[in-house]
Amino acid sequence: MELAFVTHLRQRLPTSHPLLRIGPGDDAAVLAAMGERGIVVTTDLLTDGVHFDLASTEPRRVGHKALGVNLSDLAAMAAEPVAVVISLALPLSRERLELAKELYEGMLALAERFDVAIAGGDTNTWDGPLVISVTALGRTTPRGPLLRSGARPGDRLLVTGELGGSILGRHLDCEPRVREALLLHERYDLHAGMDVSDGLALDLSRMCEASGVGAIVDVDRVPISGAANELSRRDPQTTALEHALSDGEDFELLLAVPPDAASRIVHDQAVECGIRDVGEFTAEPGLRQRTADQISPLAPRGYVHR
Amino acid sequence: MELAFVTHLRQRLPTSHPLLRIGPGDDAAVLAAMGERGIVVTTDLLTDGVHFDLASTEPRRVGHKALGVNLSDLAAMAAEPVAVVISLALPLSRERLELAKELYEGMLALAERFDVAIAGGDTNTWDGPLVISVTALGRTTPRGPLLRSGARPGDRLLVTGELGGSILGRHLDCEPRVREALLLHERYDLHAGMDVSDGLALDLSRMCEASGVGAIVDVDRVPISGAANELSRRDPQTTALEHALSDGEDFELLLAVPPDAASRIVHDQAVECGIRDVGEFTAEPGLRQRTADQISPLAPRGYVHR
Repeated sequence: MELAFVTHLRQRLPTSHPLLRIGPGDDAAVLAAMGERGIVVTTDLLTDGVHFDLASTEPRRVGHKALGVNLSDLAAMAAEPVAVVISLALPLSRERLELAKELYEGMLALAERFDVAIAGGDTNTWDGPLVISVTALGRTTPRGPLLRSGARPGDRLLVTGELGGSILGRHLDCEPRVREALLLHERYDLHAGMDVSDGLALDLSRMCEASGVGAIVDVDRVPISGAANELSRRDPQTTALEHALSDGEDFELLLAVPPDAASRIVHDQAVECGIRDVGEFTAEPGLRQRTADQISPLAPRGYVHR
Repeated sequence: MELAFVTHLRQRLPTSHPLLRIGPGDDAAVLAAMGERGIVVTTDLLTDGVHFDLASTEPRRVGHKALGVNLSDLAAMAAEPVAVVISLALPLSRERLELAKELYEGMLALAERFDVAIAGGDTNTWDGPLVISVTALGRTTPRGPLLRSGARPGDRLLVTGELGGSILGRHLDCEPRVREALLLHERYDLHAGMDVSDGLALDLSRMCEASGVGAIVDVDRVPISGAANELSRRDPQTTALEHALSDGEDFELLLAVPPDAASRIVHDQAVECGIRDVGEFTAEPGLRQRTADQISPLAPRGYVHR
């Protein structure tokens, strides 16, 4: 299996990338020297039954997600993606070569769009379910990495895109906000950033904790996705807003931005996916939610990993 | 689980590393700029039942192996280890926090010995068996990476340590030849290198293929481990030499070295684990084995991945 797949990959992978000196085939890959740029590294491991359901999902979409969630982490740091390595544990129960090829097709399409080199990997077979582990490498821009810990009281809370209901499909077809993060980081003064992977409220609480601040969310301004509305129609026990606040895997950007820059970003509508001002950071710790007529505590609910 | 484990890790991990700017806790880790050094990256995914048997093995040894095989790949490139990221899929069936801690203890001990930063990771739980995926990052030395493809006819074939029988335990307690590779690469003129992961004969055939050469192995000079002898005593169907030539997971270095440098390396006994001249590279392709009185073809046998 491994040899047949490696042979296939050698033909299928792009033959060159400006930052890849030695690609798959040696004991390790070698990337070009990055000079004064810092190296950014992140990894996510996805398992069948937890992060996707292989029985009901095209392998290409699974591959797309496995790479997409890693690129989203690079976006969260405002880092330029450079290369990825990909490890697979393929189930004996499937036609493995075909499965591996399809997973890679999903990853290759996304890698091409973001000019990411597939530098290497490790392909295994076993009698367990499918596991995909991706590690993504990026490099900082001259403005340095964007951390979670830089939010200050008075900063505005911005969020890209729309939130909630990703379970209906967007968690698989996620769109990493790499270009958006790089553009915003280059043009505006950002204080902190992260990606929304476990729900707005929960991830915001993490940014607040890392920064030693609190936050108020203007819940009437939270961008609610069509999928969040759809879920709420199906089961009115949970409102669309609750989905937008606490569903996982949105993979949108959450930013802490000083008020002037925030106004300009929103005024310019600097990114195509849309970006909204949904609240502010406060010296007082903890999360609160605000409507036109009241302020109340906001529980940091979201997807809690087992 | 994840939160409890992350809390534990934050206390247990070293608080600083000279090349780690942002460690675990943000969306990604940030390493210091590497200047003119190339970035070397490798990944290996290990699964229960294939690469180890968790039911009969202390988790620390499993952790040691997971990191060790990755460091061995960096050694094969003569790269200096810098950092690793570690992803786990932990089985629901075990006491997971304890298992994760023990796996990390095995990795931390090895990481400390090689001054490798644990930069981040992703810890998951699922109802499948244990999976560990490690990605290791290194940097090239001023002499550049040591590739598989540089062997030339007339080069001597050197190998470190002793070969065969790793299944009796050495595959778990593997000793990555990082220091040996760096020392040899710095002091002597090496043409090519790799680590022996799937058996001497099979891996040598790969080096030959990558270099466009052949090789003759002087089989009487192959260093046979005590474990290879032990296996052959238990089952005389396979000789100790056959084990040394084709057992996997030795994680020793295989080097192509011009004759002068090779003589000096062997004369100096430049590395503590021992290093031997076991043959030569030839313009004629293919593998052959030579004894005092005959030359015959050598099959590129070894561990073939499913």
